[in-house]
Amino acid sequence: MMMEKLKVYADRMSQPSRAVLIFCRLNGIGFVEIKVDISKGHHLSSEFTEVNPLQKVPAIVHGSFNLSESHAILVYLNSAFPGIADHWYPSDIFRRAKINSVMDWHHSNLRNGAVSYVINTVLGPATGRTLNPKTAAEAEKVLFSSLSNLEDIWLYGDGRFLLGGSQPSIADLSMVCELMQLEVLDEKDRSRILSPYKKVLQWIDDTRASTNPHFEEVHNILYRAKKKFEQQCSRIAETQTKPSDKIGGHSKM
Amino acid sequence: MMMEKLKVYADRMSQPSRAVLIFCRLNGIGFVEIKVDISKGHHLSSEFTEVNPLQKVPAIVHGSFNLSESHAILVYLNSAFPGIADHWYPSDIFRRAKINSVMDWHHSNLRNGAVSYVINTVLGPATGRTLNPKTAAEAEKVLFSSLSNLEDIWLYGDGRFLLGGSQPSIADLSMVCELMQLEVLDEKDRSRILSPYKKVLQWIDDTRASTNPHFEEVHNILYRAKKKFEQQCSRIAETQTKPSDKIGGHSKM
Repeated sequence: MMMEKLKVYADRMSQPSRAVLIFCRLNGIGFVEIKVDISKGHHLSSEFTEVNPLQKVPAIVHGSFNLSESHAILVYLNSAFPGIADHWYPSDIFRRAKINSVMDWHHSNLRNGAVSYVINTVLGPATGRTLNPKTAAEAEKVLFSSLSNLEDIWLYGDGRFLLGGSQPSIADLSMVCELMQLEVLDEKDRSRILSPYKKVLQWIDDTRASTNPHFEEVHNILYRAKKKFEQQCSRIAETQTKPSDKIGGHSKM
Repeated sequence: MMMEKLKVYADRMSQPSRAVLIFCRLNGIGFVEIKVDISKGHHLSSEFTEVNPLQKVPAIVHGSFNLSESHAILVYLNSAFPGIADHWYPSDIFRRAKINSVMDWHHSNLRNGAVSYVINTVLGPATGRTLNPKTAAEAEKVLFSSLSNLEDIWLYGDGRFLLGGSQPSIADLSMVCELMQLEVLDEKDRSRILSPYKKVLQWIDDTRASTNPHFEEVHNILYRAKKKFEQQCSRIAETQTKPSDKIGGHSKM
């Protein structure tokens, strides 16, 4: 069956969007990137709603087939495109099952903690939302517990990647992209969160190195956003008459 | 390879545990059920921690292989045991991709909303935890939005099951088991939440009917728990001197 070129609907500020884009580039999958700028509400447009009624990125259209949810997309791309190296999503049922397991775990743990923490410390005010310090504190707990589980359970054995792997899988790509969003935090805060987890830090570096130059190119938008947030924070700090705590300081609550 | 009989570590009060147990029974998979009573802290025992270092149910041991996360387990069982009907996890890559997509969506939506709502309205006091009415209100929003998405997006077409299916998949089983936990709510509250969603209600009935008698047998524990919570609530109501709102009424906050 001859199909139209794959379309990837993505906002590079979204970590699962970045994972899908990097995966396609790494594996020589021909695709068209269609930008869906969430900050401008493009995900709510009728055009995108036809692609994904759930109005979330990433989403793909492949011929007459459309699909959302980054993990499902990564798994689909592995079956739909020939010649993708086995380490990305091993055909061995035991290794594949373990990769499915860590990707399922990801949703309610690392993803849940990281997204909620970043929204309630930095991204909230940058996108006009109020911050909730109590939610940030709860998210921090989930984030720390997830990082501990990564360090002590998922990054086992001698391999550099999850589940003792010697080469990255789609789980490594998905979860390292998730952690990269911590880049937008204040540098001190990011270091406070990540520095206790030496294996996690090494794993981020290893995944980045093994997926470059695509990894850095697709993450460039995040480094630019980081600078913008830093400038906003220093402007807010200048206009404040008294110091306030970092988490609650810019809250409108 | 000859393997030891499958061991399923489960607490029937856990909805993903129930999904795995029902799936095994439906498909004639020989297994031993090992009860892990969460209310008694058995998931924290050193014996269970060896099976699943994450200390969560369900988990399986199959020969020397162990696995956690219910969706990963259901997918694994489909590959590891011969003769399971294709509708549970279709081999067609497009249908399989859609089932992966709805199961990925489930984590941060239906599961997130339902679990948090039930814990912060009923299960909290029953397990000695304080209730958080604000969290309950946020969970209710997620739950309603998830039910709307099920009704309007995932339950499309003429089929009785998710994604237009004419027979149930592992996604139907997982998500209906999730919704069944609403049984422990006050009957009025359960009806308030579910009654606007006619297709969802029909889908729950259809999934139940097509997986009986196993569905009802494995859910019996939930119906007994419902009765216990009702008795507890009426005892609390008798000892209270003034009426209080349903959500915040029994909170220790």
